[in-house]
Amino acid sequence: MEHIEVKRLLINYKTLEEFENFREYGSQELSMKEDLRANIIENDSESPFYGIYYGKKLVARMSVYRIDQKYNRYFKPAQDYLELWKLEVLEPYRGRGLGKILVNYVKSLNLPVKTNARQRSDEFWVKMDFQPLTYNEERDRGENPYVWFPKGVSEQ
Amino acid sequence: MEHIEVKRLLINYKTLEEFENFREYGSQELSMKEDLRANIIENDSESPFYGIYYGKKLVARMSVYRIDQKYNRYFKPAQDYLELWKLEVLEPYRGRGLGKILVNYVKSLNLPVKTNARQRSDEFWVKMDFQPLTYNEERDRGENPYVWFPKGVSEQ
Repeated sequence: MEHIEVKRLLINYKTLEEFENFREYGSQELSMKEDLRANIIENDSESPFYGIYYGKKLVARMSVYRIDQKYNRYFKPAQDYLELWKLEVLEPYRGRGLGKILVNYVKSLNLPVKTNARQRSDEFWVKMDFQPLTYNEERDRGENPYVWFPKGVSEQ
Repeated sequence: MEHIEVKRLLINYKTLEEFENFREYGSQELSMKEDLRANIIENDSESPFYGIYYGKKLVARMSVYRIDQKYNRYFKPAQDYLELWKLEVLEPYRGRGLGKILVNYVKSLNLPVKTNARQRSDEFWVKMDFQPLTYNEERDRGENPYVWFPKGVSEQ
């Protein structure tokens, strides 16, 4: 089996062009492009995105953001956690376990993880050992929160 | 032209069954079902959902939640605003302007509105006179925020 590596993505015009191939492309990516153009961020700045390349092509990506414990409404004991979003594998590259490789990478950081499960993706998250939280109207506002608990961590 | 009415949805087993036809079905709906079953909420309780029926069939829906001004990070002057999510028209009923009717209903409440534009729906929101906000990594965390300003309201 070939070696598949998860890479932290650097923000440059090449990366931003690759991002256009993903369905979840929006304000975040446009903002990065503007920041780059206006020299607000440097070329090759670090980003919250991680991805998998096949050759020079970005075929899967996700964004991971560390949230300060003061905003933690999900996990106890009190601690920072990771918010995972925009997990996506390009259509022709699905079914090869790339999504799982990305999720395992996040788990290896050994902090609790929270995601908002997209349309009908619940089965995937359960397979990844995530679990749905008790829905809280005020906190979740229509989100479909799934979380992963490292050892010793539980629901708030 | 036939008369199309936007209705506030009541939570009962019939409504929850209708919800299963929508792609964005998840923790929120499951939680309502459990609350109904456990008598935590009464049959025919009010919900944050609004919808359009064709005969007895629910063909479009959205959820609208009023957010207290203390959580307002989008609009000035300080005020409550509406968060719109899960706007969805069932596939066979698209192209008839039902999404627009729902959005116009929300606007008629005359509070600022914020939504998280889903995959590649930016064009729709622009047509609805919404506009993208300057992306803020900490506030938006991968969301694609679009807002609608009533007269006299602007970006924070």
